[in-house]
Amino acid sequence: MNAERMIDRIEKLAQCSRSVRGVTRLAFTKESEQANHLVDGWMKEAGMKVRRDALNNIIGRYEGMDPDAPVLLIGSHLDSVAEAGKYDGILGVIAGIEVVHAMHENGIVTKNPIEVIGFCDEEGTRFHTTLLGSRAIVGSLSEEDLEARDHEGVTVAEAMQAIGMNPDQYGRAARDPQSILGYLELHIEQGPVLWEKGQSCGAVAGIAGQSRFEFKVEGQAGHAGTVPLSMRRDALVGAAEMIQAVERIALEYESVVATVGKLAVLPGASNVIPGVVEGTLDVRSLHDETKRNALLAIIEEFHRIAHRRGLVCHIRRVMDSPAVVCTSQYVQTIETVLAQRGMKPLRLVSGAGHDAMALALITDIGMIFVRCKEGVSHHPDEYASPEDILESATVLMNVALRLTT
Amino acid sequence: MNAERMIDRIEKLAQCSRSVRGVTRLAFTKESEQANHLVDGWMKEAGMKVRRDALNNIIGRYEGMDPDAPVLLIGSHLDSVAEAGKYDGILGVIAGIEVVHAMHENGIVTKNPIEVIGFCDEEGTRFHTTLLGSRAIVGSLSEEDLEARDHEGVTVAEAMQAIGMNPDQYGRAARDPQSILGYLELHIEQGPVLWEKGQSCGAVAGIAGQSRFEFKVEGQAGHAGTVPLSMRRDALVGAAEMIQAVERIALEYESVVATVGKLAVLPGASNVIPGVVEGTLDVRSLHDETKRNALLAIIEEFHRIAHRRGLVCHIRRVMDSPAVVCTSQYVQTIETVLAQRGMKPLRLVSGAGHDAMALALITDIGMIFVRCKEGVSHHPDEYASPEDILESATVLMNVALRLTT
Repeated sequence: MNAERMIDRIEKLAQCSRSVRGVTRLAFTKESEQANHLVDGWMKEAGMKVRRDALNNIIGRYEGMDPDAPVLLIGSHLDSVAEAGKYDGILGVIAGIEVVHAMHENGIVTKNPIEVIGFCDEEGTRFHTTLLGSRAIVGSLSEEDLEARDHEGVTVAEAMQAIGMNPDQYGRAARDPQSILGYLELHIEQGPVLWEKGQSCGAVAGIAGQSRFEFKVEGQAGHAGTVPLSMRRDALVGAAEMIQAVERIALEYESVVATVGKLAVLPGASNVIPGVVEGTLDVRSLHDETKRNALLAIIEEFHRIAHRRGLVCHIRRVMDSPAVVCTSQYVQTIETVLAQRGMKPLRLVSGAGHDAMALALITDIGMIFVRCKEGVSHHPDEYASPEDILESATVLMNVALRLTT
Repeated sequence: MNAERMIDRIEKLAQCSRSVRGVTRLAFTKESEQANHLVDGWMKEAGMKVRRDALNNIIGRYEGMDPDAPVLLIGSHLDSVAEAGKYDGILGVIAGIEVVHAMHENGIVTKNPIEVIGFCDEEGTRFHTTLLGSRAIVGSLSEEDLEARDHEGVTVAEAMQAIGMNPDQYGRAARDPQSILGYLELHIEQGPVLWEKGQSCGAVAGIAGQSRFEFKVEGQAGHAGTVPLSMRRDALVGAAEMIQAVERIALEYESVVATVGKLAVLPGASNVIPGVVEGTLDVRSLHDETKRNALLAIIEEFHRIAHRRGLVCHIRRVMDSPAVVCTSQYVQTIETVLAQRGMKPLRLVSGAGHDAMALALITDIGMIFVRCKEGVSHHPDEYASPEDILESATVLMNVALRLTT
C-alpha cells in the first residue's frame, strides 16, 4: 500500500475541475471524462481489466480464482458538489484501486473476483437527482431520471449523448444480484466524530433515514412600538419556541438528529413584529421507528405552541427516506480488522447519503469511514491525512481479503 | 363640528398621491404641493390667515383676543410613508382646521391665538431623516439635514429649490419658545389598544424611548446529518433561546416592549446547521431607566446563552432615543374632557414617533390618540370611523378651549 501514490492521484483528480476554487466535477462533462481517463489508466496499472457501463460508471475487474464466483464490488463516486473538497467520493475509488494494486503486486489472488467502481454521479449536483450511477447498477433507474435537467435545461439523456453515449441503453448497466457477493465503500466521514474521538477510521452501522419538512408559522405583523406584548401574535417568538423544542425533543430520542436549517422572517424589518416565519425541519435517525416517534412529538409540540400563542402552524413533509442498515456480518468484519490494528470498534451512523444506499437494494453492504479534519466536507478545506488514508485503505484491504478468501 | 366635511377632506387629500395603491405623498413634491393648496383653502374657509414658513410647513392662524398672547399650536404632518393609509398625520391637521372652523362659525374667540400647522415631513420616507418640518420650527434642524438625499440622489435643499423655495432661509422657520403656549396633536393610535378597549380616543402619556441593536450570533456551520447534537454549535438554536429571553425579560419589566423583527440565518440550507444568525433588537419604553435595566438584562442573557452554547454573540447599538413625556397638565386636561364625555381616562404610550417629540424641546405638549381599526397603520387598510373622528375632534376642541380661555 502506497500512501504517496494515493495522495498523488487524489491531487491529479482534483485538477479535473471546472472551478478554480475547490473541485467542481459534474457528471457527463469534460472534467468527468478527464477523471475517467486517469482512473482507467490507474486501474490498468493495478492489473485490472477496465470497462465503462451503459451509464458511464467506470469499472475495473480483478479476476478471482473462480471467475464465476460472485464479485466483490468496491466503489464510490467520481463526481463532486460545487467547489468541493478533494476527498469526498474520490478517496473510496482511489483506495479501492490501491487495494487491488497491492494484491496484484504481491501476487494475491482472491477466490472471488473484485471490481472497483467509480460511479458517474452520486451527488446529484448537476441534475438534482442523486445516485444516478449506483441506481443504474441496481436497476432502479427510470426513464424519468434521464429526463431530469441541469440549470441550462440539458437533460441527463442529452448530456450522455453529448459525450458519445446512448442513453437508450441505460438498462444494460443493471447487474444481476446473483453475480454480486457484496459491496464495500470507503468514504470520508463528513462529520466530526472520528476527529473528536481521535481515530483514523471506523465502521458504519448504517445510513440514517431522513425526513424533511417545510413549516410556516402565521401570526400577525404589527408595529414594534405600538402593540403591547400581551396583544401580540409574534410568529418569530413562536418559531423560536418551536426551534427550542426541536432540540429538546431530539435530545430525548437517542440516535436522532434534528435541524432547522432555513428560516425566513417576514416582513423582516427591525420595527415590525414578524407576521410570518417559514422554515425547514430535517430529522434523521438510523432507527425509522425512533425517528417517527420523535417527529410525532415535534409536530405535536409545534401545534401546541402555535395554539397557545394564537398562531397557525402548517407543516408539510417534502422528503422521507428510510434508514439503510449495513450488513451486520460486514460491520463485524470491519470491527475485527479495526481491533487487530489496535483501533476501537467504533460504529458510526452516516447522516449523509452514499452509493451504498442503492447497492443495499440488491446485495450486502459494508462501509468504512475515514477521519476528516474537523469534520469539514463539501468545502475546499476538506482534508484527510496521508496517515489516515493509508490506515483506512489497509483496513479496506484486510476486510476485502476476509470476505473473498 | 362636521364629520362629513372632515371625511370629505381626508378623501380629497388621499387623492394627492403618487401611488395608485394607498397614499404616497412625499415632501417637496407635486403631490405635497397639491395637498398644501387644498389645506390652504380649507384654512381660509375656517377663518384663518395662512402662510408657509421657510420649510414649507403650512400654518393657519386664528387670531386671539390678545394677539400678543402665546399661541396654541395644533398640528400634525401632511406627508406619508409609501402606500400609506389616509389618516396618519392628515387626521390631526383636518381635525385642527375643523376645531377652528367650528369656533369661527360659532363666534368663539379664545384669549390666545391658535395656529393649525401641517408639517411638511414627519415620516422621513423620502430623505430617511424624520421630523424635518417640526425640527425646523423648534430650531433643531441643521444644514446637514438639508444635505440628506432621496433615492435618486436629490438633496433636501435641491428638492426645496425645485418647488421654488430658498433652502438657505431654513433658519427662519424657527419659532421663539416664548411666543408659544403649547402644542396639541391628534393622531391615529397606530396600535390596537383603543380598538381592544373599545374607546374612541385616549390621552397619550408620552412617546416611548427607543433603542435599536443589531446582533450577530456565530456558531459553526455543519452537515445536518453528520454532526451529533452534542457536538453542534448551532447559531439558530442559540438565537432562538435569545429570542425567547427577549420576550421573557420584556414581560418582567412593565411598560417595556421588545421585538426581534429581522433575522437572517446563514448559510440557510435545509441540510446545513446554521453557522451564523444576524438579527435586530428593538426595545422601547416610556421610562428610560426601566428600558435601560431591561436592556442590560437582555444583553447579559444573550452573552450567557452564547457562552453556554459555545457561540459568540456581538451586539451593537445602532439607535438610541430617550422617551418624551407629555406635559402632565395637558394629559390631565385631556382626561378631564374624556371623563366629561363618558370615556375612561385611558393613558396610552406612543411607540411610534410624532412631531410632538420635536415640539417638546421648546413647549408643553399634549396628544390625543384616535382608535384605528385593528390597530392597522402604514397600510392602505388603515381606517378610523367617522364617529371616532367626530368624537376625538370634539375632545380636541374642548381641550383647546380649556387651554386658551
